Amino acid sequence: MPFKETLAEKVSAIEAVIRSYLPEEKGFQKTVLEAMNYSVLGGGKRLRPLLMSETYRMFGGSGKEIEPFMAAMEMMHTYSLVHDDLPAMDDDDYRRGRKTTHVVYGEAMGILAGDALLNFAFETAAKAFPLAENPHNVARALTVFARKGGIYGMIGGQVADVEAEKTPGSEMTEEKLLFIHEHKTAALIQSAMMVGAILAGASDDDTHRIEQIGYKIGIAFQIQDDILDVTGTMDELGKPIGSDEKNGKKTYVTFKGLDGATEDQKRLSKEAIEALSSFANRNPFLEDLVDSLTGRHK
Amino acid sequence: MPFKETLAEKVSAIEAVIRSYLPEEKGFQKTVLEAMNYSVLGGGKRLRPLLMSETYRMFGGSGKEIEPFMAAMEMMHTYSLVHDDLPAMDDDDYRRGRKTTHVVYGEAMGILAGDALLNFAFETAAKAFPLAENPHNVARALTVFARKGGIYGMIGGQVADVEAEKTPGSEMTEEKLLFIHEHKTAALIQSAMMVGAILAGASDDDTHRIEQIGYKIGIAFQIQDDILDVTGTMDELGKPIGSDEKNGKKTYVTFKGLDGATEDQKRLSKEAIEALSSFANRNPFLEDLVDSLTGRHK
Repeated sequence: MPFKETLAEKVSAIEAVIRSYLPEEKGFQKTVLEAMNYSVLGGGKRLRPLLMSETYRMFGGSGKEIEPFMAAMEMMHTYSLVHDDLPAMDDDDYRRGRKTTHVVYGEAMGILAGDALLNFAFETAAKAFPLAENPHNVARALTVFARKGGIYGMIGGQVADVEAEKTPGSEMTEEKLLFIHEHKTAALIQSAMMVGAILAGASDDDTHRIEQIGYKIGIAFQIQDDILDVTGTMDELGKPIGSDEKNGKKTYVTFKGLDGATEDQKRLSKEAIEALSSFANRNPFLEDLVDSLTGRHK
Repeated sequence: MPFKETLAEKVSAIEAVIRSYLPEEKGFQKTVLEAMNYSVLGGGKRLRPLLMSETYRMFGGSGKEIEPFMAAMEMMHTYSLVHDDLPAMDDDDYRRGRKTTHVVYGEAMGILAGDALLNFAFETAAKAFPLAENPHNVARALTVFARKGGIYGMIGGQVADVEAEKTPGSEMTEEKLLFIHEHKTAALIQSAMMVGAILAGASDDDTHRIEQIGYKIGIAFQIQDDILDVTGTMDELGKPIGSDEKNGKKTYVTFKGLDGATEDQKRLSKEAIEALSSFANRNPFLEDLVDSLTGRHK
């Protein structure tokens, strides 16, 4: 089957898994449950659960304990977007063409829906324990999932980014920008792939290799986003073109130039795919997926 | 040793445990780490970790795996206060005589510090796995910890409370008020005691009894707060007297009257202590503690 059709099929299966773990909208707390479901079902590309399940398959995983983690990953990603959109943060009224959660449900409920999704992500991930043969792997996966989402992962990157934007005169350096990209973007991609590997029983060594691959994918993905802001069409980017430059935002392109950025993106994408292809068991779909996510300009 | 001295000693030991799990303030994400530590070290009474460790002791627990959970419990409690104080929520500038987190660090950082504490609570709790003899108990404890903090626990109660306050004309019923008290207040007390019991290896039956005891303690504690708002001194209550009535807030006293409320508080307190004293291994300090928390008016 061609890549695009296989992709569509897999994403639709993931959509069903995610839905099956969402809360029923009832009880005195009904509003927050509606706000959670509205946020999660906002039409994301489900890349992280997809990377998770494909890495799991690559390491021979075939159980059900991956499913709560797939849903949990999307809940964690979604909470970060809901809080990112709040008035005190990016103050965005629209995301993917729909009103953002706090616009529909009010600011207090936007905060609470984000909190609820983050907490429910862990509640959902913990449902893997009775589904798994080996509780140690679930414990290891949960530890990675927590760390990569937190102050040494996504939140850490978000804090550095928010602070750089909100502090007039604060200097953006290449080192800080890479910290932000590594943590804000790459950390959840690493988390997704590492959780997949760990649940399938991958060794610590292999899990570390997957972490490095996730880093390369995340950075290449982000560089590509910075490049598209300069060269792309609004359709490709999903947001107005040239907004980074207009906002005086320093990006990877600012530091490396368009040629240097493109070179780095291609190199990281190539290295990630080569590293994936060096494992004993290969997953050609995963390699194609990484190529489509990070190599658009080759 | 008299109860108050033992209490002070135990709380100071808990303070040291909590500090040992707080993050070091360094790196590009330093500001959020400072905001987290500022929030957690704001001088709380550490009741939840204390109830946790004393329940653990009652069931014969003597390991170290309780410690990350004690710190995690306080992180979870603290994040809920940080977000509660935000402008879009209760908009409080002071808590326990200190400026609230968002006042000191700004609103964006207040949101992120709360998120960071919630995520770090799970990251910290997961540190119990390598410390525990039995990973199944840690998995069970983590599941309870997540559930009681989330949409079927504390967040659920918070949502119903916020919605009742922010929706003009919405009717507060006795049923809804009890839902709010059970979830917003009792859930974390249940969580603390159940985690303590589970980590010490308590059976499902005993853990269920502890859950019921935690419910009684939480409700008695909350009724007492409602009573003090009418009869207490500002010193006893820690906030201005009569604020509930002034704000038109319906409380347990509104529905049951002062006498009815006092009667229920005393009954629940007595039942909780009697239930604690019916276990094979008793913990006299825990019984005194529950008495001091819920029986002030006897």
